[in-house]
Amino acid sequence: MTKRKLRIGLIGSGFMGRTHAFGYSTASRVFDLPFQLELACLADITDEAAAKAADALGFARSTSDWRALVNDPEIDVVNITAPNAFHKEMALAAIAAGKHVYCEKPLAPLAADAREMADAAEAKGVKTQVGFNYLCNPMLALARDMIVAGELGEIRGYRGLHAEDYMADAMSPFTFRLDPAGGGALADIGSHALATAEFLMGPAAGPITQVMGDCVTVIKTRPDGKGGTRAVQVDDIGRALLRFENGATGSVEGNWIATGRTMQHDFEVYGTKGALAFTQQRFNELHFFSTSDARGRKGFRRIEAGPEHAPYGLFCVAPGHQLGFNDLKAIEVARYLEALAGHQPEPFNFRAGLRIQTLVETIHASSRSAAWREVPTDKVQHQEEYRQHEKA
Amino acid sequence: MTKRKLRIGLIGSGFMGRTHAFGYSTASRVFDLPFQLELACLADITDEAAAKAADALGFARSTSDWRALVNDPEIDVVNITAPNAFHKEMALAAIAAGKHVYCEKPLAPLAADAREMADAAEAKGVKTQVGFNYLCNPMLALARDMIVAGELGEIRGYRGLHAEDYMADAMSPFTFRLDPAGGGALADIGSHALATAEFLMGPAAGPITQVMGDCVTVIKTRPDGKGGTRAVQVDDIGRALLRFENGATGSVEGNWIATGRTMQHDFEVYGTKGALAFTQQRFNELHFFSTSDARGRKGFRRIEAGPEHAPYGLFCVAPGHQLGFNDLKAIEVARYLEALAGHQPEPFNFRAGLRIQTLVETIHASSRSAAWREVPTDKVQHQEEYRQHEKA
Amino acid sequence: MTKRKLRIGLIGSGFMGRTHAFGYSTASRVFDLPFQLELACLADITDEAAAKAADALGFARSTSDWRALVNDPEIDVVNITAPNAFHKEMALAAIAAGKHVYCEKPLAPLAADAREMADAAEAKGVKTQVGFNYLCNPMLALARDMIVAGELGEIRGYRGLHAEDYMADAMSPFTFRLDPAGGGALADIGSHALATAEFLMGPAAGPITQVMGDCVTVIKTRPDGKGGTRAVQVDDIGRALLRFENGATGSVEGNWIATGRTMQHDFEVYGTKGALAFTQQRFNELHFFSTSDARGRKGFRRIEAGPEHAPYGLFCVAPGHQLGFNDLKAIEVARYLEALAGHQPEPFNFRAGLRIQTLVETIHASSRSAAWREVPTDKVQHQEEYRQHEKA
Amino acid sequence: MTKRKLRIGLIGSGFMGRTHAFGYSTASRVFDLPFQLELACLADITDEAAAKAADALGFARSTSDWRALVNDPEIDVVNITAPNAFHKEMALAAIAAGKHVYCEKPLAPLAADAREMADAAEAKGVKTQVGFNYLCNPMLALARDMIVAGELGEIRGYRGLHAEDYMADAMSPFTFRLDPAGGGALADIGSHALATAEFLMGPAAGPITQVMGDCVTVIKTRPDGKGGTRAVQVDDIGRALLRFENGATGSVEGNWIATGRTMQHDFEVYGTKGALAFTQQRFNELHFFSTSDARGRKGFRRIEAGPEHAPYGLFCVAPGHQLGFNDLKAIEVARYLEALAGHQPEPFNFRAGLRIQTLVETIHASSRSAAWREVPTDKVQHQEEYRQHEKA
Repeated sequence: MTKRKLRIGLIGSGFMGRTHAFGYSTASRVFDLPFQLELACLADITDEAAAKAADALGFARSTSDWRALVNDPEIDVVNITAPNAFHKEMALAAIAAGKHVYCEKPLAPLAADAREMADAAEAKGVKTQVGFNYLCNPMLALARDMIVAGELGEIRGYRGLHAEDYMADAMSPFTFRLDPAGGGALADIGSHALATAEFLMGPAAGPITQVMGDCVTVIKTRPDGKGGTRAVQVDDIGRALLRFENGATGSVEGNWIATGRTMQHDFEVYGTKGALAFTQQRFNELHFFSTSDARGRKGFRRIEAGPEHAPYGLFCVAPGHQLGFNDLKAIEVARYLEALAGHQPEPFNFRAGLRIQTLVETIHASSRSAAWREVPTDKVQHQEEYRQHEKA
Repeated sequence: MTKRKLRIGLIGSGFMGRTHAFGYSTASRVFDLPFQLELACLADITDEAAAKAADALGFARSTSDWRALVNDPEIDVVNITAPNAFHKEMALAAIAAGKHVYCEKPLAPLAADAREMADAAEAKGVKTQVGFNYLCNPMLALARDMIVAGELGEIRGYRGLHAEDYMADAMSPFTFRLDPAGGGALADIGSHALATAEFLMGPAAGPITQVMGDCVTVIKTRPDGKGGTRAVQVDDIGRALLRFENGATGSVEGNWIATGRTMQHDFEVYGTKGALAFTQQRFNELHFFSTSDARGRKGFRRIEAGPEHAPYGLFCVAPGHQLGFNDLKAIEVARYLEALAGHQPEPFNFRAGLRIQTLVETIHASSRSAAWREVPTDKVQHQEEYRQHEKA
Repeated sequence: MTKRKLRIGLIGSGFMGRTHAFGYSTASRVFDLPFQLELACLADITDEAAAKAADALGFARSTSDWRALVNDPEIDVVNITAPNAFHKEMALAAIAAGKHVYCEKPLAPLAADAREMADAAEAKGVKTQVGFNYLCNPMLALARDMIVAGELGEIRGYRGLHAEDYMADAMSPFTFRLDPAGGGALADIGSHALATAEFLMGPAAGPITQVMGDCVTVIKTRPDGKGGTRAVQVDDIGRALLRFENGATGSVEGNWIATGRTMQHDFEVYGTKGALAFTQQRFNELHFFSTSDARGRKGFRRIEAGPEHAPYGLFCVAPGHQLGFNDLKAIEVARYLEALAGHQPEPFNFRAGLRIQTLVETIHASSRSAAWREVPTDKVQHQEEYRQHEKA
Repeated sequence: MTKRKLRIGLIGSGFMGRTHAFGYSTASRVFDLPFQLELACLADITDEAAAKAADALGFARSTSDWRALVNDPEIDVVNITAPNAFHKEMALAAIAAGKHVYCEKPLAPLAADAREMADAAEAKGVKTQVGFNYLCNPMLALARDMIVAGELGEIRGYRGLHAEDYMADAMSPFTFRLDPAGGGALADIGSHALATAEFLMGPAAGPITQVMGDCVTVIKTRPDGKGGTRAVQVDDIGRALLRFENGATGSVEGNWIATGRTMQHDFEVYGTKGALAFTQQRFNELHFFSTSDARGRKGFRRIEAGPEHAPYGLFCVAPGHQLGFNDLKAIEVARYLEALAGHQPEPFNFRAGLRIQTLVETIHASSRSAAWREVPTDKVQHQEEYRQHEKA
């Protein structure tokens, strides 16, 4: 039986554009995908850049006109990896053209924009995805499964973190990441910590309901790239105290000036019967403590990723060999395609992406007012459905 | 030249009482102390308990009357390791009797009491110490020296934690640690995290000036030990967002229901040129990142305690052999005796102990009011003098 | 400029067959390869298996006749991932047909066979590669670069290990890995430890010149898969003491019954000025000790893989994100293709593969005779050339 | 009831002399010892040195005449911490005087001497001990208990190591450790690795029966301290392949030129049902893998030392606080005193110390002859009895 063709358009070919391309390429080999993929067209700023990237990344055609791409009848899915500020315009155009849209995080600089995008997609009936690929790690699935199965007992506390140092140098110039509208460490990487927190805690402790934020600008001015300096308004460190629906509490930090850290995306979850600890620095490992271990034999045990942690086994039949960062993107791609084929709900759609923006903005607002804030309750229906589906 | 005799009285012989006794015993062998120590008298609840403990711990005499001990003219220093609720009464009596007083932490359940104690000691001119022995770790001295020497550059961020699980079991009965006046995880072990934060950050970033607390009671009732239950009012988890004088920010957590954790007293310090990471779980190690390492060769390096980190070399001439928990107490004892001999200021006197209580209470107050609070500025003069002395 | 087409034939579609396919797929996206790749034909045991695998792995055609594949004029490179016992026959046939051959390790069960294969390839002038993909890890390149650059000073000692537990269960049945001709833990995974040892030590300490082996069969019989048992003749643990040309000494162990271990492929190298430590369990990290660090600041530092460790940056522009096992294969593929294009010598050709077999057999012979043995000096010319090339 | 007095004499006040003094001091506080200890007399090279050390370490008297000390009727136990070359003469004199003798390791440079000492002690009926204090670690007791209890199943393999770098500098001068009679890395620290191997494996796999040694001198000459150089004859690295009585195999390495290593005294034990891993660098932890953990939840778990691992609880009632190097010596002292009181057999007497020397010499002989050697079967009766006692 031949598979239906799915034609992919990609906007952008930087860090994330390449990662998307790698993801499609790997996914089509590793998974038994429901579609035959066709890397149809790649759009970038100039014709030359687009042509070169298309050639390197295996796309059949290229263009410097992203609008042409989103309106191209020969394209089914639009991948958006352009700078954040363009996400909304591109996504709305693609949705209007009836395309499915797979957009890099953050979905949009502002929650209001993200909501408009989510609403548009749902109104149009297209399927969407936001790229939170750390959530595609089999060890995170294991962690959540253990929480859901009650292996940790009742969940009481959470500690989340995403710290790197790519903005630690005060002389690194102003970029889009510092854009007053939607930039900052909390939005850029703290968002991962928030996504992970709700991914893990959600099924057991419910969503985050209240936050107390503390967002600080440490490097007050940065070179503007034109010989002058520019004032920075966004946070270099964004911290928040958290309340979950069931009363569990926690904290989270996004920090892009953490000298020496490259991927300190960590969490710890504490329950009445056990605990989990994880760091993305060694993301093929999950550390698990169980109070049911024998007396004098208790301790955090280092579980290594292996074939029993699906879909690891599709990448490698032997345990301990380790997935890489790009493999997580391939898993993300595969899950989205399953959703496009109607085999499952969307794993992390625009509504879920909006949720993260809402959390970020509520923390920002809390920080500005120096007071606890309720998190608006956008019901992330699709994500819940996806979880039900996974469990079934 | 014979040394002057110093006669020690100890009140209490539980966990901390034994640790004090071990500390004196070890200090007198390891260090060239300025005194000839005489373990003169030990007081405990009953004559029998006191006699037995005195025999085991090497004290010449024993008594069930702590007032007799503090008024005993044959005693120079009174060590208080009785339950927290008695600290004030005992310390004031000892001070009134002109004794030097070495009191376990917390100095008193309430800051007002601690202040009264500090004032009394200063008025009387006796020398005092509060037991924050984690601060006596040579690796913490190294950390602070590196910060002071500028090896981390300008200090920007701090993350502190003290998590254990000794109260994680909801069926563990009500104890003095749960006393509404002064109990709770923040006071009991979060205080260590606060002491470490100011110990390290103080010389470079100044004291903590503002806090936003979040103190939560997770286990609402505990067995009262008489077949019934009793409501718990104190925090099982105490978190705080922090501001230091120089504008650096941070966070701290005290948590005694962190399932699986025994000694997660950790910190990370981030500066413009380097970073430090530490866990008391492996307290003979300090992890140091330096931006000045060569390209492609940078990384956190694991420094193991050795003779170059005084006073490690007095315990063992070879590196990597490791100090134990009780050794930290011996260092604490030795430092206090040097202060008693007038060779240096008091390393951590009642005024410093008050400071910790002030921080704890301000965090509690902040949590109750759900708002940031200024930390009252008790000037901890002696501690600053001690630091100057060490540097000289 | 359009690239020359390179047509790939793959024999086998099991663990390693898939890994090869993934490698080609990823390499063509990540690297700017000198060829346009065409996955031309896949051969497997049956027509059905071959067709299914070809479809899944992206090969245009399929066959159950590997001889047809190796003689297919539309194929330039033959990849051999069939069971070890077939390597020789297949490779010789492919060489005879003038194909370049990329064969999984071990090159052949017996060194004599491997030599025949290497001789044939050189006589015919085709280019070959043996799959030792752990050597393609950027952190191993870093380690060797540091050794070559003298950052460790004069090299004195080496400790190598490859331990897993996939044969630890005495009830796991007899397989080709247990074949008396060429099977065993030393050949299967100890060979990785040997390859790594010479890869790292070679440029500084020269090749291994003498070995003292100790190969033991721990599980004496295994189920034969037909209800009976079969005696095992090969080693479950193979250890060897080593001498390198410059007088440096070391040890190595291959162990497939190391309960709990999945990828304990570790090494430590000690020099006069520094040391390195590594484990494949965390293969994106290299631990480096330098005696030139400041007093009281020395320690093993954890270097995380990043863009400064080529070709990491082609996979991901940000450090700490981590490569996966399959990415190492993509690097291996890319290097081979560069050799095929004449841009560099073969990185690890049949002559190098023979070298590993020679080491394994010499250790086996040493173990049987319970005496030290000289390692025959097959000059691995191409490998040396490759190293010179890399340095240039 | 008053305890009998036990009068201690100590010869030597260097690294190990101090450690012994610390051990007695701490043991008398931590344990309920069967004796009242009296630190009676300390002997050192000169009167001044002896007097100063006696004062510092709490000994009542001092002397520069060790013969006076061993013949002093006011002394019951003689502790020998003088350089290795004097052990025999001193121990025989003390035994002749009817003293119990507690001698630092190695018992004597040569096994023949050690045998003479063991024979003399047994003939005289005095009780002896050799200082292998790493064996007193509660985590090693736990490891052995787990092995004995079958928690690892049948024991198959062992890997032991003791590597440091205190002799890595070729310019460090000639010392007694380099004495051709009995010196070298294998004797100095490899002996610890051998002692640990038999301590753990003995009860389950029996003693080491065969060895294949490889002892190499890396630094051929050292400064003689008088402006010239002196040839080194002893090993800088001593490795051995091992056979245990039950057929289990293993390896061991002693290495004092392992740049960067301070206390890499490690072991791994592999059984059919589980495995253990340990490093003295973090000696309050034991890593345990069990095949009986649930599918997808298996992993090495980090067990932290705590009160359930006797006698940890006597030092500290809370887990995770960690013992130090000197605490291990206190445990060693306490065990010896229990043996002196007749409460248990000697834990590690001269016969056991001889055993280690026999192993070292057999490995040396094996290395010289480049052939496997049988280890002479000195029956270490007392040690076996001690183990039986512990189990009972």
